[in-house]
Amino acid sequence: MSVPAPDLAAIRAAAVRIKPWARVTPLLHWDALDAELGATLLFKPEQLQRSGAFKFRGACNAVFSLDEAQARRGVVTHSSGNHGGALARAAQLRGIPANVVVPEGATQAKLEAIVACGARITRCAPTQAAREEAAEALRQRTGATLVHPYTDPAVMAGQGTVALELLEQSGGVDTLLVPVGGGGLASGCAIAGHGINPRLRLFAAEPAGAADALASLRAGHHVTDIRPDTICDGLRATIGEVNFDCLRQHQVEVLAVDDNETLAAMRRVARELKQVIEPSSATVVAALLRHRQRFAGQRVGVVLSGGNVDLAAWAALVAG
Amino acid sequence: MSVPAPDLAAIRAAAVRIKPWARVTPLLHWDALDAELGATLLFKPEQLQRSGAFKFRGACNAVFSLDEAQARRGVVTHSSGNHGGALARAAQLRGIPANVVVPEGATQAKLEAIVACGARITRCAPTQAAREEAAEALRQRTGATLVHPYTDPAVMAGQGTVALELLEQSGGVDTLLVPVGGGGLASGCAIAGHGINPRLRLFAAEPAGAADALASLRAGHHVTDIRPDTICDGLRATIGEVNFDCLRQHQVEVLAVDDNETLAAMRRVARELKQVIEPSSATVVAALLRHRQRFAGQRVGVVLSGGNVDLAAWAALVAG
Repeated sequence: MSVPAPDLAAIRAAAVRIKPWARVTPLLHWDALDAELGATLLFKPEQLQRSGAFKFRGACNAVFSLDEAQARRGVVTHSSGNHGGALARAAQLRGIPANVVVPEGATQAKLEAIVACGARITRCAPTQAAREEAAEALRQRTGATLVHPYTDPAVMAGQGTVALELLEQSGGVDTLLVPVGGGGLASGCAIAGHGINPRLRLFAAEPAGAADALASLRAGHHVTDIRPDTICDGLRATIGEVNFDCLRQHQVEVLAVDDNETLAAMRRVARELKQVIEPSSATVVAALLRHRQRFAGQRVGVVLSGGNVDLAAWAALVAG
Repeated sequence: MSVPAPDLAAIRAAAVRIKPWARVTPLLHWDALDAELGATLLFKPEQLQRSGAFKFRGACNAVFSLDEAQARRGVVTHSSGNHGGALARAAQLRGIPANVVVPEGATQAKLEAIVACGARITRCAPTQAAREEAAEALRQRTGATLVHPYTDPAVMAGQGTVALELLEQSGGVDTLLVPVGGGGLASGCAIAGHGINPRLRLFAAEPAGAADALASLRAGHHVTDIRPDTICDGLRATIGEVNFDCLRQHQVEVLAVDDNETLAAMRRVARELKQVIEPSSATVVAALLRHRQRFAGQRVGVVLSGGNVDLAAWAALVAG
């Protein structure tokens, strides 16, 4: 793949483009965890973003970047759910068609959100190859523009607005921590973060059961043969090559966390921060707790990526 | 009782006094409910306040209003939980002792929060008389200042800062909706709200199983013989006389909601607004849905009062 990564200017342009549609999410504080870690944590709750996840930023930037002729033919993507829901919502706002390829195993609430926005769903096997093949077939048949969930430069730029906003709202942080799956958020935030503050320390939390970003950084090349086995349905995708290149270039340290740590973190977030977040989001809190020595004494921006859950199943997990 | 209600100046003074300690909670948006009701809703999520409920504002104002000699003798109160936790936290911040009388049936998490702040707990029967007697006995024995959970003018003034903040952040609303139990929040917000905008429409949501405020307004006098039977543990107290007088004076309309409506609302808040709130908080969302004709076409400030729950029990309710 030879997709170029966006630069800070593209991320600033994305912020302007999505401003009429996206929410400025607030910063949340968590005193007890601050005290426990000896750090100052500033949480960016993207579960409060339109469509319930940061994904709306990238999808919205991509959809509103299309020219009129492109837009009329619609958009297509593959997604475990949140990018699909976000793209469907953005397409609905622009009044254009959207097709979303969703692998088996996706969260029901995410499927329903896609349909509720008037998009069409195509199911596929839960593998990276099946996702990409099905989306490509749809693209060829419809002439729609493929909006890749994390390698699309407009998507990466949109996701980078999370860091842009966080850095502006917080008056600056020492360290930024985000979850990593396909790497759209991690790479966009790395570019925005280092664009604003070259000394910013960057971390990404990854499920140990889908740690292809960590494996790629360790191997020094793009590792794509890891089979995901994690409860974090939003982080099962293989990191994109452009996203991996970004993580390497910006010296992002990937912190692996086990699903049981993630679930415990999700429970604490519900009890103490009063937020409903999905397991993928909770990886960052698990990483704060497991790798606490990385964060002690720091002012840390922490991105909670989304909160789209099947409520009954989520409640059962939270009840423990 | 001949306690004077605070005025807008007292509420503004409270806002200054608690500023170093209290959180400025953000405003949250809920697009789907806006569309459903044909209204613009601005939610004030006090579950994000210190101690997990708006109660911290009033308790903090009361504790930091004490002179040095008073403060040294400590504070005492009775509370179903949130005021107790808030007072314990405020007393801890000032470094003074706190005693809290808690009726049987209180939420375990609220009890633990009180103890975690170093306050002492005394249990009593779940009646208004038992609460007040036990607190009075403690006051006489210790010389501590009684900080009544809703009739104390400093508490009412602190709670009024919720409306003050909401009106500033929102750039103004047509209508304000809060829950009513003892009436500290409802009366403080009525005074602040009408002080800033005399044409503001005021509503309070009350559980049908503890609708003493509604009964009092209908009877035209303070009705105190209602036995509470509601899942809303924070709204079982009988409205205070000064609080009732305020509601009447400010023409607050009380909207009764059934517990099953409140539980359904709590589920929707978790699923759609991604917030963990306690049943007492969800009464306002139930009132929006049940009495929707009151809110159509309006710009409505809605106060979510708190989110202190026993997580396993809450999750079971949410899973339905």
